[in-house]
Amino acid sequence: MSHNSFGHLFRVTTWGESHGPGLGCVIDGTPPGLALDEADIQYWLDRRRPGRSKYTTQRREPDAARILSGTFEGFTTGTPISLMIENLDQRSKDYGDIKDKYRPGHADYTYMAKYGRRDYRGGGRASARETAMRVAAGAVARKILGDDIAVRGALVQMGDDTIDRANWSWDETENNDFWCPDADAAVRWADKLDQLRKDGDSIGAVIEVTATGVPPGWGAPVYGKLDADLAAAMMSINAVKGVEIGAGFGAAALTGSENADEIRMGTDGRPQFLSNHAGGVLGGISSGQEIVVRFAVKPTSSILAPKQTVTAEGEETEISTKGRHDPCVGIRAVPVGEAMMACILADQFLRHRAQCG
Amino acid sequence: MSHNSFGHLFRVTTWGESHGPGLGCVIDGTPPGLALDEADIQYWLDRRRPGRSKYTTQRREPDAARILSGTFEGFTTGTPISLMIENLDQRSKDYGDIKDKYRPGHADYTYMAKYGRRDYRGGGRASARETAMRVAAGAVARKILGDDIAVRGALVQMGDDTIDRANWSWDETENNDFWCPDADAAVRWADKLDQLRKDGDSIGAVIEVTATGVPPGWGAPVYGKLDADLAAAMMSINAVKGVEIGAGFGAAALTGSENADEIRMGTDGRPQFLSNHAGGVLGGISSGQEIVVRFAVKPTSSILAPKQTVTAEGEETEISTKGRHDPCVGIRAVPVGEAMMACILADQFLRHRAQCG
Amino acid sequence: MSHNSFGHLFRVTTWGESHGPGLGCVIDGTPPGLALDEADIQYWLDRRRPGRSKYTTQRREPDAARILSGTFEGFTTGTPISLMIENLDQRSKDYGDIKDKYRPGHADYTYMAKYGRRDYRGGGRASARETAMRVAAGAVARKILGDDIAVRGALVQMGDDTIDRANWSWDETENNDFWCPDADAAVRWADKLDQLRKDGDSIGAVIEVTATGVPPGWGAPVYGKLDADLAAAMMSINAVKGVEIGAGFGAAALTGSENADEIRMGTDGRPQFLSNHAGGVLGGISSGQEIVVRFAVKPTSSILAPKQTVTAEGEETEISTKGRHDPCVGIRAVPVGEAMMACILADQFLRHRAQCG
Amino acid sequence: MSHNSFGHLFRVTTWGESHGPGLGCVIDGTPPGLALDEADIQYWLDRRRPGRSKYTTQRREPDAARILSGTFEGFTTGTPISLMIENLDQRSKDYGDIKDKYRPGHADYTYMAKYGRRDYRGGGRASARETAMRVAAGAVARKILGDDIAVRGALVQMGDDTIDRANWSWDETENNDFWCPDADAAVRWADKLDQLRKDGDSIGAVIEVTATGVPPGWGAPVYGKLDADLAAAMMSINAVKGVEIGAGFGAAALTGSENADEIRMGTDGRPQFLSNHAGGVLGGISSGQEIVVRFAVKPTSSILAPKQTVTAEGEETEISTKGRHDPCVGIRAVPVGEAMMACILADQFLRHRAQCG
Repeated sequence: MSHNSFGHLFRVTTWGESHGPGLGCVIDGTPPGLALDEADIQYWLDRRRPGRSKYTTQRREPDAARILSGTFEGFTTGTPISLMIENLDQRSKDYGDIKDKYRPGHADYTYMAKYGRRDYRGGGRASARETAMRVAAGAVARKILGDDIAVRGALVQMGDDTIDRANWSWDETENNDFWCPDADAAVRWADKLDQLRKDGDSIGAVIEVTATGVPPGWGAPVYGKLDADLAAAMMSINAVKGVEIGAGFGAAALTGSENADEIRMGTDGRPQFLSNHAGGVLGGISSGQEIVVRFAVKPTSSILAPKQTVTAEGEETEISTKGRHDPCVGIRAVPVGEAMMACILADQFLRHRAQCG
Repeated sequence: MSHNSFGHLFRVTTWGESHGPGLGCVIDGTPPGLALDEADIQYWLDRRRPGRSKYTTQRREPDAARILSGTFEGFTTGTPISLMIENLDQRSKDYGDIKDKYRPGHADYTYMAKYGRRDYRGGGRASARETAMRVAAGAVARKILGDDIAVRGALVQMGDDTIDRANWSWDETENNDFWCPDADAAVRWADKLDQLRKDGDSIGAVIEVTATGVPPGWGAPVYGKLDADLAAAMMSINAVKGVEIGAGFGAAALTGSENADEIRMGTDGRPQFLSNHAGGVLGGISSGQEIVVRFAVKPTSSILAPKQTVTAEGEETEISTKGRHDPCVGIRAVPVGEAMMACILADQFLRHRAQCG
Repeated sequence: MSHNSFGHLFRVTTWGESHGPGLGCVIDGTPPGLALDEADIQYWLDRRRPGRSKYTTQRREPDAARILSGTFEGFTTGTPISLMIENLDQRSKDYGDIKDKYRPGHADYTYMAKYGRRDYRGGGRASARETAMRVAAGAVARKILGDDIAVRGALVQMGDDTIDRANWSWDETENNDFWCPDADAAVRWADKLDQLRKDGDSIGAVIEVTATGVPPGWGAPVYGKLDADLAAAMMSINAVKGVEIGAGFGAAALTGSENADEIRMGTDGRPQFLSNHAGGVLGGISSGQEIVVRFAVKPTSSILAPKQTVTAEGEETEISTKGRHDPCVGIRAVPVGEAMMACILADQFLRHRAQCG
Repeated sequence: MSHNSFGHLFRVTTWGESHGPGLGCVIDGTPPGLALDEADIQYWLDRRRPGRSKYTTQRREPDAARILSGTFEGFTTGTPISLMIENLDQRSKDYGDIKDKYRPGHADYTYMAKYGRRDYRGGGRASARETAMRVAAGAVARKILGDDIAVRGALVQMGDDTIDRANWSWDETENNDFWCPDADAAVRWADKLDQLRKDGDSIGAVIEVTATGVPPGWGAPVYGKLDADLAAAMMSINAVKGVEIGAGFGAAALTGSENADEIRMGTDGRPQFLSNHAGGVLGGISSGQEIVVRFAVKPTSSILAPKQTVTAEGEETEISTKGRHDPCVGIRAVPVGEAMMACILADQFLRHRAQCG
């Protein structure tokens, strides 16, 4: 057991605080013989990197990952892969306010309640900077999954504004600053975020992550379910408050007749489903259909508007957070959600291979 | 690692198939010295038992749990607690249809794809009968949590019909057949279910489970988060397609200003939150507020209306499921959700005590 | 984590006390499609069964194992296999002495110190009856390993009397009551045990367990080492005080020149070692040679000669254990050691297959 | 599960190869509020450091550990502690021989058999340099155990030359280059090692590690046994071939009468044992007596004398290892064994506190 690890056979352990010397992870269980160098990892890290657009935090971090072990002559060796990113742009001179006051929506109070002390600089261990290591691990996971499995994510809702699925284009997700698959929505969201930044406020979002090419049979019954793993993985991302698979919460409103994914024989000789309310998972095991997960991200808690709070000493006061925060953390959660999907799939692939050969 | 276990220090492993000799679980890590006898467990099992009302499956199972180890003279000893329920009302003479045909929405096809064989009788290992052992384990978990922590569940939505929260009464949940806290909604739901049963159809639902009395500090950062554990726990229940904490998916539509749970000093000298969008968890650690989890259950897949499917041999056909199925599996998921909440809390309590004393 | 489980992918969890309703285990991770019925398990259980000869405890237990889940139509399904043995010959009327007095060499005092209470009947959870479930699990493990891997054990030392390795015959182990591979030693040991039983005393022993046919490459570096797993597995057997691999403690007395296992090419195109000081494991990974493990079992602590002790209330007294005890528990430890070797190998096989395909 | 981790609640994951950029570990589960800085760790690392005397490898490594996370203002915060040592003195220009030839007694062949490739430089992941991180983790574990628990190690046998226990002095272990508690033996061993180095040969050894001050009750039944954990921990150290507790293999030669550790009441109101054949562990749980573990280390496999071997391509050849190797790796295994004892005790302490409060 480790509070800072996830996965079983593809196992990722992360460490590091927002304003400490750096962040890192140890990835154990990677099969040997996979081509892997730092550029393979950096490609994905760059997609999550702060300061990538004006809509994300302006903290300037190159987030350059170094491979410290586990590869030799450009290939994985089967031994643990250690990755590290140095923290460079910390600006940690002045923490007056967040040192003593508990920020609403942050883990300041709960960390103190648990541990009796905390590294308050930039949120310490609770900072979303930790998610960089998830993305790095996801890059390794993608190597395991190979090219036939595509894991992609998109922002499908910002605030109460949802995309029009008729407009869905994966290509479009690369054209705007929001990983938005609907070009029209992206235009609206740009306006919305400009206004929110002006107001010093923030907004929530919903992310959808899908995986195509996953063969039927990955996952396990009862507690090792693929969807249970995905739920934990997504919920463990900072600021996530909900996770759903396939029809998700919408399934509650359906009848059994409406919800049934009827089956015909596919041209490939495999059963094929006529709809995908299940989101590609039945009984915790992949069905061969597209795996579809959505998760909700709450609005960034660090906002300019003053809010009531208390100090560590128990005095009532208020706090207003100035700083370099993302007005919509959901945007940078897209590559993180993709990475978590890739890691969980890699783990379930190895687990399946172990038991079923 | 085990596909059929959950929890770390309060660790539950279940076994058994729907139509095998019985079902059971082994619970490891229970503290010694807790008063525990079979009646303590039976009380909770009876709430989940099939045939409790006309709205649940008419399979007649007493679901009487036997304690096979781990207690002595009425107290837990600290050694593993083995529980077992015998399967009595199996009616397994005739499985013609489900033996050969993959039922839409069921795990029939995915189990075959994974294992190459399956116990098709009543769903085998994928049957919701397994959840009886979760309820049994939950009874032990409640002993660990003690009387100051109350874990309760309610059905808050059936189909597209949501309760009126202004009517919320925990007492009312004991008065109707749906664990519904809104007496008016319960009346409407009775009608709806009568009609659905007549039609041979089924309906989805949303369950809310809460825990009060949990002190601040339980949980862990990053991957050992209390909410990540709860997400996996709820998603692992049969037919669950979504999980949310606090404001959940609704948080996506909020601004940071709206979502902020402001803080004042409580009369007990502890910080007190003026709202609970967080659902009692911040940064993966309990805040001392009520913990609020909701999960969505899809409509029962076993319905009378014929649906297209294929056989194990790859022939296209259709299937109509006659039998003793719950028209709304969400109803019996209420005590199961409560049990999972209790188990996760017991585990996180022990984990917290281990690290922080 | 579980205190009562071992293995990772082939994972065994046991439960039960000496004088409770029964003993059992849950085996998770078994590949599907292996032929397995109760007779497969009973064959191995019978070899460990009490009362098999006059040199082991006369407790009369058929030790008939029932398969409660995880198989269907004679084959494993990939779901957890639950096994159970009922306790029948408990004679638990009178525990006066061991209820109140701590038996030297037993876990009576340490269980009380840990848990504050204990099931004192027959040693409760600390009883060697638990090892029946290891043997049962070993039977399943052997199915995974297949016929090309042979796991065998022998008693190689009783008291200070060691076998003559020149006389080694595996066939002979089936001809005497001690699993002794040296017919001459078996004669001497019979005399020795007769005398010890007359004296109400007991004696220690050394067991050797070997595995042939294990391919090179099983195991893992650093902490997942095959030999580290074997060491824990053997040390976890009741009364074991030492474990060694290959040359073992004898390696301490050798020079590097003497200890070197030189390598030539085998006729099968694989490297072949000219000696086996390593015991078949290098760097934690199997080398393709015979795997050789030895473990030391202390003399049965339950003896007739009165020994000084104290009561649970702290009064000094003495105790003399009458009862049905094995004068040399090492004898029945032979099938247990074999089973543990088989289980560890099965687990490492699955782990290897997971990572390396 | 992780092949490169050990411990459950005090969990250590190590990474790194002998000639890569560095070595490191992540320690999860450390209680918050412990004073910890780099000097605390360096003190113990210096005791294992290469080149400390003329009897150990002359590789020049300062082995300076850096704390990268998990502490704040000199105290542990409860978040993962990341430690790193840079590799500085690698001399990796020329690996001609060990690149292609399998060194007898090394993991060269088995790593290739498992992974199909390996970092051959200095043994890669199989190098004993990894043990530096065990010592670093042990330094943190000692902080958890506190000053009342003393973990100490000594070399008690070199080759076939065993110390005279009548001469035992813990102070003396600090006076010679061998951690030898017998001043006379230390003189003999110096001569022996001088000769072996001249001959280009090496020698095995036995190490004894003890812990005093451990309260009764740590450990767990059946598979979570304290002694089973210690066996795995010691066996996982490079070159270890045997582990024993208390009387160990010697117990095999004893009768029950001889082996009994009789009990009287101690002046502290606790049961006290009149002897310690058990080595401080009964039924897997500490008895409050001194915990005594011994392990055997084989002679260094890297020796000057040419030995027969084969190349990776399957050609027969011979190899003679020149280089900077320890003539007796057992010497530097003493602080490593101490560290492993400390880590296991810290883990079992937290596990005990979790379950029993």
